[in-house]
Parts: sequence; structure tokens; C-alpha cells
Amino acid sequence: MNMIKLLQKMTLKEKVGQLNQRLYGWEIYEKKAGSIFLTEKFKKEVQRWGSIGCIYGVFRSDPWSGKNQETGLSIGEAKQVSSLVQDYLKKNTRLGIPTFLSEECPHGHQALDSLTTPTNSTVGMSWNPLLYQKLQQIVARELRIKGAHLGLISTLDVSRDPRWGRTEECYGEDPFLTSQFTIAAVEGLQGKPNQKIDNQHVLAVLKHFAAQGSGMGGHNSGPVGIGQREFREIHLPPMIQGIKQGAQMTMAAYNDIDGIPCHGNGQLLNELLRDELGFTGAVMADGCALDRLVEITEDPIQAAVWAIKSGVDISLWDEVFPHLETAIEQGALSEKILDTAVLRVLNLKNKMGLFEDIMAPTEDVPLLEKKLTATQMAKESIVLLKNERQVLPLSQSQLNSLAVIGPNAHSLYNQLGDYTPFKNERECSTVLEGLQQKCKENHIDIVYHQGSNIVSKLPDGISQAVRVSKEADKIIVVLGGSSARDFTTQFDANGAALSGSNEMTSGENIDLADLRIPKAQVELVKELSNLGKPMIGVFIQGRPHILSEVEPYLDAILVAGYPGEHGGEAIASILFEESPSGKLTMSIPRHNGQLPVYYNYREIAFKKDYADNPGKPDFPFGYGLSYTTFSLNELLIARNDSNALIISGTITNTGSYAGAEVIQIYIKSHQKKVVTRVKELKGFKKIQLEAKETKNFEISLDSEDLMELNERLETKKMQDITLIIECTENYFEQRIDLIK
Amino acid sequence: MNMIKLLQKMTLKEKVGQLNQRLYGWEIYEKKAGSIFLTEKFKKEVQRWGSIGCIYGVFRSDPWSGKNQETGLSIGEAKQVSSLVQDYLKKNTRLGIPTFLSEECPHGHQALDSLTTPTNSTVGMSWNPLLYQKLQQIVARELRIKGAHLGLISTLDVSRDPRWGRTEECYGEDPFLTSQFTIAAVEGLQGKPNQKIDNQHVLAVLKHFAAQGSGMGGHNSGPVGIGQREFREIHLPPMIQGIKQGAQMTMAAYNDIDGIPCHGNGQLLNELLRDELGFTGAVMADGCALDRLVEITEDPIQAAVWAIKSGVDISLWDEVFPHLETAIEQGALSEKILDTAVLRVLNLKNKMGLFEDIMAPTEDVPLLEKKLTATQMAKESIVLLKNERQVLPLSQSQLNSLAVIGPNAHSLYNQLGDYTPFKNERECSTVLEGLQQKCKENHIDIVYHQGSNIVSKLPDGISQAVRVSKEADKIIVVLGGSSARDFTTQFDANGAALSGSNEMTSGENIDLADLRIPKAQVELVKELSNLGKPMIGVFIQGRPHILSEVEPYLDAILVAGYPGEHGGEAIASILFEESPSGKLTMSIPRHNGQLPVYYNYREIAFKKDYADNPGKPDFPFGYGLSYTTFSLNELLIARNDSNALIISGTITNTGSYAGAEVIQIYIKSHQKKVVTRVKELKGFKKIQLEAKETKNFEISLDSEDLMELNERLETKKMQDITLIIECTENYFEQRIDLIK
Repeated sequence: MNMIKLLQKMTLKEKVGQLNQRLYGWEIYEKKAGSIFLTEKFKKEVQRWGSIGCIYGVFRSDPWSGKNQETGLSIGEAKQVSSLVQDYLKKNTRLGIPTFLSEECPHGHQALDSLTTPTNSTVGMSWNPLLYQKLQQIVARELRIKGAHLGLISTLDVSRDPRWGRTEECYGEDPFLTSQFTIAAVEGLQGKPNQKIDNQHVLAVLKHFAAQGSGMGGHNSGPVGIGQREFREIHLPPMIQGIKQGAQMTMAAYNDIDGIPCHGNGQLLNELLRDELGFTGAVMADGCALDRLVEITEDPIQAAVWAIKSGVDISLWDEVFPHLETAIEQGALSEKILDTAVLRVLNLKNKMGLFEDIMAPTEDVPLLEKKLTATQMAKESIVLLKNERQVLPLSQSQLNSLAVIGPNAHSLYNQLGDYTPFKNERECSTVLEGLQQKCKENHIDIVYHQGSNIVSKLPDGISQAVRVSKEADKIIVVLGGSSARDFTTQFDANGAALSGSNEMTSGENIDLADLRIPKAQVELVKELSNLGKPMIGVFIQGRPHILSEVEPYLDAILVAGYPGEHGGEAIASILFEESPSGKLTMSIPRHNGQLPVYYNYREIAFKKDYADNPGKPDFPFGYGLSYTTFSLNELLIARNDSNALIISGTITNTGSYAGAEVIQIYIKSHQKKVVTRVKELKGFKKIQLEAKETKNFEISLDSEDLMELNERLETKKMQDITLIIECTENYFEQRIDLIK
Repeated sequence: MNMIKLLQKMTLKEKVGQLNQRLYGWEIYEKKAGSIFLTEKFKKEVQRWGSIGCIYGVFRSDPWSGKNQETGLSIGEAKQVSSLVQDYLKKNTRLGIPTFLSEECPHGHQALDSLTTPTNSTVGMSWNPLLYQKLQQIVARELRIKGAHLGLISTLDVSRDPRWGRTEECYGEDPFLTSQFTIAAVEGLQGKPNQKIDNQHVLAVLKHFAAQGSGMGGHNSGPVGIGQREFREIHLPPMIQGIKQGAQMTMAAYNDIDGIPCHGNGQLLNELLRDELGFTGAVMADGCALDRLVEITEDPIQAAVWAIKSGVDISLWDEVFPHLETAIEQGALSEKILDTAVLRVLNLKNKMGLFEDIMAPTEDVPLLEKKLTATQMAKESIVLLKNERQVLPLSQSQLNSLAVIGPNAHSLYNQLGDYTPFKNERECSTVLEGLQQKCKENHIDIVYHQGSNIVSKLPDGISQAVRVSKEADKIIVVLGGSSARDFTTQFDANGAALSGSNEMTSGENIDLADLRIPKAQVELVKELSNLGKPMIGVFIQGRPHILSEVEPYLDAILVAGYPGEHGGEAIASILFEESPSGKLTMSIPRHNGQLPVYYNYREIAFKKDYADNPGKPDFPFGYGLSYTTFSLNELLIARNDSNALIISGTITNTGSYAGAEVIQIYIKSHQKKVVTRVKELKGFKKIQLEAKETKNFEISLDSEDLMELNERLETKKMQDITLIIECTENYFEQRIDLIK
């Protein structure tokens, strides 16, 4: 179908309709007496514009939308609503243009009967983008089967401040690692690059462009005061890789960069994104973000003109893009600019096959495959920080009884993160449930008590927890944070939590000034430690918490992130037998006053330690132990014809457990007129090895990985670097002249 | 004298000699058996270059130089050494070019028998730049009388992070206030702008250019990642004003800005400073800063070429600028660039009259005038944060005995700050000494105990302090921090403290991660509070400390900064009778995890509070109470012909004490495409009023104060602002269209 011809047929109103995404999707249907109807709200919006570009969140389920198992859509019902919507548009609009259905999938589709995977902050710690890609293929299928086309996913945000509540949506603090996971997300959701999005896949909407992870003080949507070099080195790489992978949609970020809001930043969205990086797709506004522009322009028409001229194509819930019509009628905006945006939307719909009536996939991914993939990801993401006297793995023969304690031991929603739908709890597993299964298999007694809430004390919690633990051989204490929203949560117009349960310590708008493990939990650990039993801490959390107050009391520490719906089983497996292989992707601070503590800071002589505290984090980026040990040998650094660096060697599992190790390649560039960073991740590979097994490995740093900005911010080939090859027990470095 | 002709006569070596400032000045003389000699070290350096550009710190006295009353120079001896040096150069070099003697005067000349004024962080709180100018006139005279020409003073640093140890060298967090004090410093040190520096004045060397106050994590010399807008709005204004006031020397900053070190930043030192801002003077390197460039270039010749091409003219102690000779011989540098730098130095020497044998002023400022001015400044800088049940001022009639407790009650060096010479303690006053005088006059008993050290406990300190306080009517507890260096301090090659007494909590390289009042002091306050007596806290400190742990126990709180050598008397006056009139110039945080808390952040909708803590500081910029109250009336906003805004009105002292109030004028600009700051200081005036007195006031905002950067970083006139007029009890705002 020829989109230019279609555009020519459209009225002004119909065009503006294509750029609008104003509805809360869950309000377009109603379930009544077993039947599903489209609401008047939906029909009025169709009538108003004669066309609808996108509808957001038709399938969304969560406390904000109020859609639960009773009021929301099963997979079958979701398919039905999709058909109803597209049929209605076909029959009730002049041109019958189908709508995009856009859906949240930050860690699985935020809808009923959908897999809730570990959050980004968790999967980052797996250092396994290929596994993540498999997970995203499942998510794509789950979206497409219901009739959705656009998957909204945070892949671009690089968290530079753990106080930021959306840190859980970030793969970590590093641009290279984030880029690798962005590539995996795009390929998982969209399929191979440069091919048509088939009916097993959806278009990825990459969030957020750009630099949201450098918000002042960790404040959500806070001002970002960084310079061009900092921006291009830290925040731009994921987008560059996303575009290379075929990303065709992105969402602008709420924040400003050095005073210019991203939604009104033509340099960012037109000059950089499109002209320089070659992005040909569409830019979506964040929820109500255009309304925030009105705080600056004090006039919605001006805001609409500013945003569309700056490169924003599609609105989200705002009261601004409806004014595009008036703007054109008043001559404040040329219709050509509008047409460009509309054509971007129509072209994407055409590419997705919306005009071709392609059927949704008839078969979902088998449940077992979903479960195995998600569980594997949860396992691979668990980081072992400490293991004194090798208290882990739990020896099944010497263990007669186990106490499982803590606010995150048996609270499903606490382990899922923000943007989570209502779950069928029987299909999920908490740590307690995972351990109950293990203990049953191994004839071990198990006792449980919650002990405390996340933030507040539980009446009698500590004494009860101590009581039930008295007879146990070992104690597993499951601590950390929670992003679980509940019905006491107040929501902003964009769905971010305004206020609510004080037990929330992470998620959108839940920024923290104090990163320490809450006092109630510290006290619980201290009291339990008086029993003198081996105690293992498992931390389920969306961000790094400062562990120093509990660390001395714990013989072993596992950080499990938000491991998703099968997290309990995954954690139980690691506790009992499988060697952990996750590595931190956010440095864990030692003190609230020590931020930032990211590893890749710029290095010219300066005092790194404070007079009263160390400057270094408690545990750095890349850190993570194993039950086994590894040795790197026969390292060789070579160059190939296309100027890539090929690092090869062997890795041997020198211990007595099977396990996986992540070989990490960093560089330190020796530029002559720029202060470079102490080190920068440029390659990594995760390798699984049986005990005593040796494997060859090869990691290549493409010439593209070896580019840098010179003193005039021009991109140039690196000339002179120190190459660093490291894993837990190994460290090698070599200076390399890349010109020779 | 014609400097170009002089230059033409010079050899390459002699030219390089003019750019060198390699000696530690205190090493060029020796006192032996009542006589003073120039050392071999000095003579060798003269011989090596045949010319010396500058000598740093001949008169310096402090633990680093090791020069005290015995080994250092009295004023008479200082004059003698100056003459010896200049005579030696005249007689022992081919061209007899005199040398610049450059000296530290961050808060008074860092030499024996010199006035140690309150630190910049203290004088900022006075909001009285005119008084500061008087103080700087005294300093200039003290420098010049000894034979010094250049006064090194931190005026350009705007501290955006109270963790930074050099915060004590900053007037505060605000660019406008900093600019006003920079103007005062330059006029005080140099005299009227656009006139020759006379023999009562010295050339001000403004430190540091630029942006050092935005170092990552508050780390001294840490990387600065800010963008151009942030840089120009926050860090550039003091330099712009300094240049307008006639500043002809500046010192480059250690840090990088967005990856480019200031010492190798031609955009900063040539394009911006010289071409755009019209600075015609010379740029001095910071101590050993050029050596740090070698960490980047890995070659001192390259570093020398890079620095001089980037606009650095004069070295400081480094092993880099000596390589300029080789650079030219090797053809790596054109002699023209060298000549430009040398000519800048020669021209400044000529302007200062160094070739004319002008005598130093024969008369010093009378001691009483020095004392009165410094004491007045200390008084005006004291900020009253709290005064419950009007416990202050101390009622002389109802007071029979007073307990004075705390580590800063009677420790002179603790109240002076970093960069402090050895003092003649009998001429100075501690709080205890100030209060002893007051109590004697008023027949009040006074008892004292130190109670604790700054950081560590004092054995039996608390119990003794409680014991001596038992019979007192009221307790004055003098707490805070200290920058006092002692003989256990280890110094870096640039004189910054490397390590030493743990009792240091401020100063160069004493950055803190934890801003809370140290535990030993908190405990002291808690124990004293058990006595149930009215307790007044006086905080002597170089940076804002978090007060929340002691605040509940204190009925009144005074923040006195580092009040200088007459600080004790000043504080005693405020405690007993004079109304405090200082206002904070750094917001006081409530929590370590809450940084930054400066008042002038950019404002687009974002969540200002953390989920677990407020976002706002405990006490904001501009805050400060009085013993009396004020009322603003008859406010009028007018425009004059040159487009300045004239704010006029009356101010009435409505209370029963004499006092001074600071009328503060802020604006909020309503730009249409830029996220502006919540408010920005643009004018202020301090007005002294007797009880019940009314005065007229007028504050003008020049058209220059009403400029801003548009979305393309071009400087434009403001168009649309909200004008805010406020003082402690009054707040008015009005929207103004500046186009009409």
C-alpha cells in the first residue's frame, strides 16, 4: 500500500488523529455479563479524529489501571478486544486506518497471563545478552498473540545514581553493557535487523532518549546538567546500537539536558538522532511529557509546535498534540512538518503489515519453555558477594533443618519490580516456595517467618523469627527492597507512584536519599545473629542497597535483583547446588555521602578518598564470586584485517563445581589531550564450564568499539590503549599501539 | 619602559625564566645569627635562567613551609628579603628584570604579623561586599608593604557540593553573590578599575578558572562533567565581573571540564577568556598542575607546548615549563607563542611599576582599624538559625554564670581556616576569651571545658564538661569543624594536606562523605542537655554541617563560619547584644544522601522529595534570623532609561533591637524554550536600622543582570520574568514583561 497516497487523502483532523495516543487503553473496553464491549470513550475519540494513531495499554493490568483477573483481559479476551478495535476502526472511519496497540513490556508484558521476567537491573547482572534475547522473543510472541504491535521497554537508560528509583529499569551503570542488552532486546522483540517485523514479533519502543540516568540527585526526571562528551560517552551508545539493530521507535525522556527538555530538543531528536545517527522511525512522547512543556511555553499550541518541530511524532495522554490542528489553522505550523510525522507513523504501520490483515500468531510459546528461560535468567543474574568458610552451596547431607526468614522470603510481588501485572500466584515461586521444594526433595525440615516488613517493624516479628530459627541448622534471611504497588498507592497522571505504602523502596518516583538497608531489617539480622548459626543473606531489590550494616552478620551474601515470577526456584537452586555466575552492573556504595561510585570515572590526579570515608564502593562493577574458581591462560591479543582486536585464550574451571565465568575486557585509552576514564568495558563473554574443564575463548573488539571523541568532540580511532583482561581471580593488562 | 624592546633583547632562556615560578619562596632565604641571606637554591635558579618571572610564597608561614615566628619573616624582615631579591636580580642578571613576588591571601596574607580575616565562606554570609572591599584594602596594604605584588585569592569558585573541602574558600553556592564579592575583592586588592595599580595595592590573581566547585562527588580537583549552559550560568559570572573590574591575572583550575583539563583548554583560556571576555592579562598554572598534564601527554615537552598554546602563561613549581626551551629548540613550539606569554608578564610588571623602583608604602594600616574591620566582618557574617523563647541575646541582668563548652570554644587555629599563618595568639581572641571579657564587664561567672575534640572523644571530656556546667545558668556550646593543619600533617607537593590529624574536617583535600556533626560532639550535646539548662550552639566551621542530630537539644543556633583572629570577640558581641545579620550562602543539607541541595536548580516537573526523605535542605540559601523584625513597604518597581529595573521601597525595623536586614531580589525567568532555574539571585542590599527606624532603599538590576542564554546558548535580554523581593518576614512577587 502506498502511504504517500494514503496521506494525500487524509484530512487535517485525520492526520492529527494519527499522532495522537491519548486514551488509557484499559478504558476502551468493558466486560459485562461474559461479553466484552467497546466503551463510549473509545468511540468518541474515534469520532473526534476520524482516525487513531496508537492506543496505549489496552491489556495493561496493575493497581493503577485497576485491571485484575476479574476485570482485565485473559489472552483470549485480549485477542477479542484487538479484533473489536481494528474492526471498529475499519468500519467506522472514512479511511479505515488500523491503530497501533502499544504496550508496556519493561520485563515481560504488563498484562494478565504473561511472563514476568527479571527486571533489567537483574538481567544486566547475568552478563548474558543471548539468553536475554531468547526471553525477549517470548515477550514479543506474548505481545503479538494478543494483538499488540509496539513494546515499550527501557533499554537506553544508564543509571549513574543508585538513588534513582528507575535504576531497576536499567541494565546498569555502563554504556557498553547497556548497549549489548539493547541489541539483544531489539533483536528479541523485532527479529533480525533489516527484515520486516513478522507476526512473531513487535516493534520495540526504546526508552528513554536521553540521559535520564544522570538526573540531579537521583531525582526522577530531575535536571541533567551534563556536557556533550559525558552525554555521548555514557548515554548515547545504547541508542547508536539500537538503531544499528533496526530500532524504529524511541520514547523521549522527561528530563532536560543542560537546560533543554528532550521533548523540545531539535538538536537531540532531529540533528543527532536522525541526521547524524540515521534513525528513520518515529519518536513517541513520554506520558504527559508534552503537558510539562506547557509549563515552559505557557501555551499548549506553542508546546505542540515546539515538540513536533523538535522531532516528536506521537503523543502520550497529553492535552498538547490535539492542538496541532489549531496550530496549522493558525499558521503557526506548516502542514509539511505534520505530514512528515504522520508519514513516519503510517510507514511503520505498513512495515508491520497492519494494512495486510496478517493474523496474529496462533500458537503461544509453550509454558515450560517460558518457565525454563525465565528461571535460567534469574539464576544467571544472581551475584555472590561473600561466601565465608564456603557456607554455600548448602550441603544437603549435613543439613537437617533450615530457617527461612525475612520480608522478601515469601512475598511474590516484592520480587517482581515496578510495572508488574496481577499474577496467577500458583504459577510463580517465592524463595520460600523454591526452598520448600528443595527441602522436600532432600528431606530437610523448613521453618519460615517474615520477621519484619521492608521498612517498618512487624509486631512481634523479630521475636517470632528468632523463635522459629532456634532449632534450625542454618538461616536464610531474605531481605532487600520492594517496588510492589498496592491499592493504597496514589498514582500520577502518568502512572508513576505519587505516594502510598511506605514499604515501597524502588520503582518510578520512589527515589531514595538513604540507600542503607532499612533499620527494621538490620535489627532482624542482628537479633538472628545472636543465635550463632550460619546465616545467609539473599537480597531481593531493584537497586544497590548499602550492605555495610548487615554484612558483618552474614556468612554469605547473594544479590538476586528482582528475579521475576520464577525467582524463588532460581534462588533455591543457587543456594543448594548451582554455582552463581552473576556480576554486579551497578557498584554498591559503602556510604550515602559517597555518590557517585560508578567505576568508569574520568581520571586526572585527584583525591579519590574522602578524609572520613573511602571513595571506592563496597563492591565494584563487575564483581561476583562463584562456588568454583577459574584460570585464564594462553592469552593472545591479535589484530585482524578490519583492525579489530581479537583476544583469545583458554579458561579453565580449576575448582570442583560446574560454573560460569564472565571474562571482562576493559580498555584505558591514552589520549593526549583528553582526560580519559580509568577504564571502560569494551567486551565480555560468559563461559560455562564443568569442574576441571578447559575451553578456548575468543572476544573481539571491533574497530567500532575502539573509537573515541577527541578534544574537539570528533569521533576518531583510538591510537594508544591499555587493554585489560580480567575475571574474578585473574588480571592482565597490556599497552597496545593501535596505529602500528 | 618599552616592553617589546625589552623582549627583543632577551635570550630564549631569559624568556622562559620569565614564565617560571618554580621556587618555594620560603626556601630562598635563611635567617642566621640575626642576619638574613639569600640561599644557593635561589641563586642557582637565577643563574639557570638569567631571569625569574615570579617567586611564590617568600613570606609564607604555616606548618607546610615550616616558617613560624622564629624561622619566618617579620614585616621588617620581609621588606628586607624583598629588597635583597630585587637587588640581587638587578645586579646578577644581564637585563636586571625584577621578579613578581606572589603570595597567598585567601583570607588575609598567609604570613606572620598579618591580619587573618574570616574565610570566604564566612564573609559571603555577611552579604556585605563593601565591608569586604575594605578588608581587602587592608590585605593589599599588608602585602605591598612587605614587597609582594600578586595576591592569590579564591574568588571564582562557586561551591555546588558542601562535601568539597575547599568550600571554605567559596563565598557560597550562588554565581551572582560570588560575583559581587569578586568585584569587591578585586577593587579592594587592586584599587579602582582602569587605573594603574598604585603602591597601596597589589594585582589580584583570581582563583580558579574554572568550575572547580562542581567536582564529581565533592572530590577535590575531581572531574567536572557539566555542560556549557551550566558552566556559563553558574561558574562563569564571577570571572566576567572580575574582568570588568580590571582583573589581570587568574589561576587555572586543576579539574577538567567535560574531559578537557583547564590547563590544556584553549577554548577556555584563549577563545572564551581572552577573545570573548576580553581578558588581556596572564594566566597562572595551579601548583604542579602542569605536572598532572604529563599524566596525559606522558611527555613534559608536549605538556609544556599544550599548556602554553592553550593560554597558560606562568608555571607554579612544575617540572614542565622548564621544557619550553627544548620545545622551541626542537621546533615543537613557535617562539611567537612564547613571546606573547612573556610580554603579558612583562607588561604586568611594567603596569605595576616594577621597573620604576616605586617604594613600598611606608605606613601600614593602623592595628585598630584592622581589628575593627575584621571584627565587624566576623559579626556581620554570623547567621542565627534558631532562637527559641528568645534565649538570645543573653540577658546580662538575669545571667549569673555561664558555661562555655566545646572543641571550638578556645582553639584559635580551629577558627581560622586553611591557608593560615602562625599567629601571635595574644592579639587574637577565641570565643572563650571574647566571652570572658564580656562576663568580666557584666560581673558574670564563667566556666569552661573543651568537652571533646572535633572528631575524637576527649578522655573524661564529657563528664568534666557536664560537671563544670552544673552551676551555670546557661551553656554556650561551641562546635563545628576545623581546618587547622599541624605538624603531624603530611603535605602534597602543592601544599594540600595528604593526611594527618583526623581532627581536620575541612580545607584543601579534606573532602567529607559524611557532613553530620561528628559523633563525639553530638554525644557532648546530648549529655549536656540532660542538665536541662538553656543551651546555645555556636558553629565554627568551614562548610555546612548537617545539624539535625544536635538541633533538637539547642535553644539557639549561631553559625559563625571561620570568623578569623578576632572571631571570639565578634561572637561574644552577638551573643550578648548585637543583632546577627548574616544569611546563609550555602544551603544546609538535612541528609548526606540528599545532595545537591543548592537553591537555584533547574525546574521542569520532577519529584522533588525522595520517598524516604525531603528533597529540601534543612536551612536554605538566604536564610538567617535576627533579634529584631523587619517590614518592607511601599514597594515600587520602575524602569529607567537604560532599561534597568529599579526596586525601591521602605524598610522598617519593627522590633526592639537595632539590626540589619538583607533585602534579596530574585528572578524566575519565563523563557519559552529553556528550562530555567526556580529562582536566581540578581540583587541584594544590607541595611542597618535602629529599633523602629525606617529607611528608604533602592536596588537596581542593570540590563546586564537581566541577560540570559537562549536555547542556542546565545546571550539575549530577558523578556518575561517574575521578580521576587524577599527578606526574613516578607515575600513579594510580580510578573514583569520586560519587552513593554
